[in-house]
Amino acid sequence: MTRKELITAIQQKKSYLCVGLDPDLTKIPALLRSQPDPLFAFNRQIIDATRESCVAYKINTAFYESLGIRGWETLMRTAEYIPDSHLKIADAKRGDIGNSSAHYARAFFETMQFDAVTVAPYMGEDSVRPFLEHAGKWTILLGLTSNAGAIDFELQPAGDGLLFEQVLKTSSKWGSPENLMFVIGATRPEWIDRVRQIVPSHFLLVPGIGAQGGNLSETSHRAFNGDIGLLINSSRAILYASGGSDFAAAAGKAAAALQREMATYLASR
Amino acid sequence: MTRKELITAIQQKKSYLCVGLDPDLTKIPALLRSQPDPLFAFNRQIIDATRESCVAYKINTAFYESLGIRGWETLMRTAEYIPDSHLKIADAKRGDIGNSSAHYARAFFETMQFDAVTVAPYMGEDSVRPFLEHAGKWTILLGLTSNAGAIDFELQPAGDGLLFEQVLKTSSKWGSPENLMFVIGATRPEWIDRVRQIVPSHFLLVPGIGAQGGNLSETSHRAFNGDIGLLINSSRAILYASGGSDFAAAAGKAAAALQREMATYLASR
Repeated sequence: MTRKELITAIQQKKSYLCVGLDPDLTKIPALLRSQPDPLFAFNRQIIDATRESCVAYKINTAFYESLGIRGWETLMRTAEYIPDSHLKIADAKRGDIGNSSAHYARAFFETMQFDAVTVAPYMGEDSVRPFLEHAGKWTILLGLTSNAGAIDFELQPAGDGLLFEQVLKTSSKWGSPENLMFVIGATRPEWIDRVRQIVPSHFLLVPGIGAQGGNLSETSHRAFNGDIGLLINSSRAILYASGGSDFAAAAGKAAAALQREMATYLASR
Repeated sequence: MTRKELITAIQQKKSYLCVGLDPDLTKIPALLRSQPDPLFAFNRQIIDATRESCVAYKINTAFYESLGIRGWETLMRTAEYIPDSHLKIADAKRGDIGNSSAHYARAFFETMQFDAVTVAPYMGEDSVRPFLEHAGKWTILLGLTSNAGAIDFELQPAGDGLLFEQVLKTSSKWGSPENLMFVIGATRPEWIDRVRQIVPSHFLLVPGIGAQGGNLSETSHRAFNGDIGLLINSSRAILYASGGSDFAAAAGKAAAALQREMATYLASR
C-alpha cells in the first residue's frame, strides 16, 4: 500500500485507526476455546466487526510466537484474512546485522506478505536498510515508545538532544516518507511536538491510546501534518470491550466510537 | 544451565566456542537439498561434527523465520537436537513492552526450551525484565554489535560516555552475572577493555570472529575475567568450511582448530 493509497483510505473512512491484534488465550471469551483455532476465531470476528472503522491492522508477533508452531499458523491465517484494503502491519520489532535483517524482511514481506514491519533501531543503518529495500513496503522504526522503560535510554541525553531525537534525525535520512514511519508513544503528548520538528512529513504510528492512557484529541492535533501523517493504534480497549458472547459487537462499537471521534478531529484540523 | 555449569563445561572441554547455526538454503551442499528437511539435515551433521569442540550453539531465528512454518519446524527440531550438555541460545534479538516481552520470553524459554535469548535494549528495563524473571535462564543483551551500523547509535556520545557504555552501566543493574550476559562485537578489540571496566564479572558473547574479522587471541586475552567470562561465536567459518559432501568433516575440523587455539589461551591466561 502506497502513502497515497493510505491517505485516500483515511480520507474515505474518516479514520486513522489501527486495530492491534494481540489476542491472549487467557483473555478471549471462554466460548471460543473449544474452536480448533480459538485465536483465529477471535481475530476473524474482531476483523469483521471493525474493518469499516479502521484503515490498518497490527499483529503483535509475541502473542503468537509464545504458542509455538500453532501460534505461527494462527498468525499467518490472520494475516491472510486481513482485507487487502487495510495496511497489514507486523509488530515484530526485529533488527539484526544486514544479512540476518534481510532474512527477517523476507519473512514478513514475502513469506507472510505484510505491508509493514516494526524494526528496532539500536544496531543502526545496515540493520534497517534490508527492510527499506523492499519496494512498496513500509519500515516502521521505533522512535519513542510508550512504556515506562523509555526513560532508560530513549529519553536520555545523546548528542545535542535525547536519544530518540538522534534516532529520528539519523534514521530519517535512510528512507523517505514514502517507505518509513516511526513508532511514537503518546504517553506525554508534548513529545510529539519535538518529533514533528524533526520529522514533519513522516507518518507516525502511535500506540498508547486506551489501555496505555494517551489522550486522543491532543495527540491527534499535535501529530497531524498536511497529509494527516498519523495512525493511532488501539488493542485492548477494542479486543476486550466485552468478555462475553457479545465481544465482537462490543469491539465493533468501541472501534466505531473511536472512528467518530477521529472524524471530528480530521474535520477540524 | 547455571553459570557454574557453564564454567565447568568450558574448563573440561578447554573451549569457549559457540557454534552459530545460521544455515542458508542457498549455501548448504546441494546433496542435502533432496532431504525432507534440508536445513535440519545440515544442522544435525554440523552438531554431530562439532559438539566435542564447543560448549554452546546459537540459533539465529532470522534464517528460519524467512522460511515460514517449515522454518519454525526446522528451528524447533534443531533446538531439540542440541545436546543438553550445551548452552542453547536463541539469537532472536527480541524486545517489546513488558506484556509482549513476557510472551517472547515464554516462547523461547518455555515453548522452545532455550537456555538463553538475545534481547535488544532500546526500550529499557520493562522490556528486558520479563526475560530475566525466568529462573535458570539467561538474557543476553545487545551491548556493542559487530556490524557497521554500530557507529550510528551504539558508538555515539550519550550521557558521560558512549551509548553502548550507558546500556552496559544501566542494564547491568537489572540482572546479575548469573542470569545476564552481553553481546560485544570484537571488530575493535580495544572496546573490550572499556566493556570490562563497566562489567568485569559478566559473561560476554562475542560474534565477529572469522567471517566478521575479529582477532581471537587479542579478543580472548582482553575479555577473560577470573571466571573466563567469555563465549566466542563462529558461524560461517565453520558451517561453510567446505561446500562439498565433506562439509561436516570440514566443519568439525574448523571447530576443533578453534578449540585447540582456545585451549592455549585458557592455559596462558
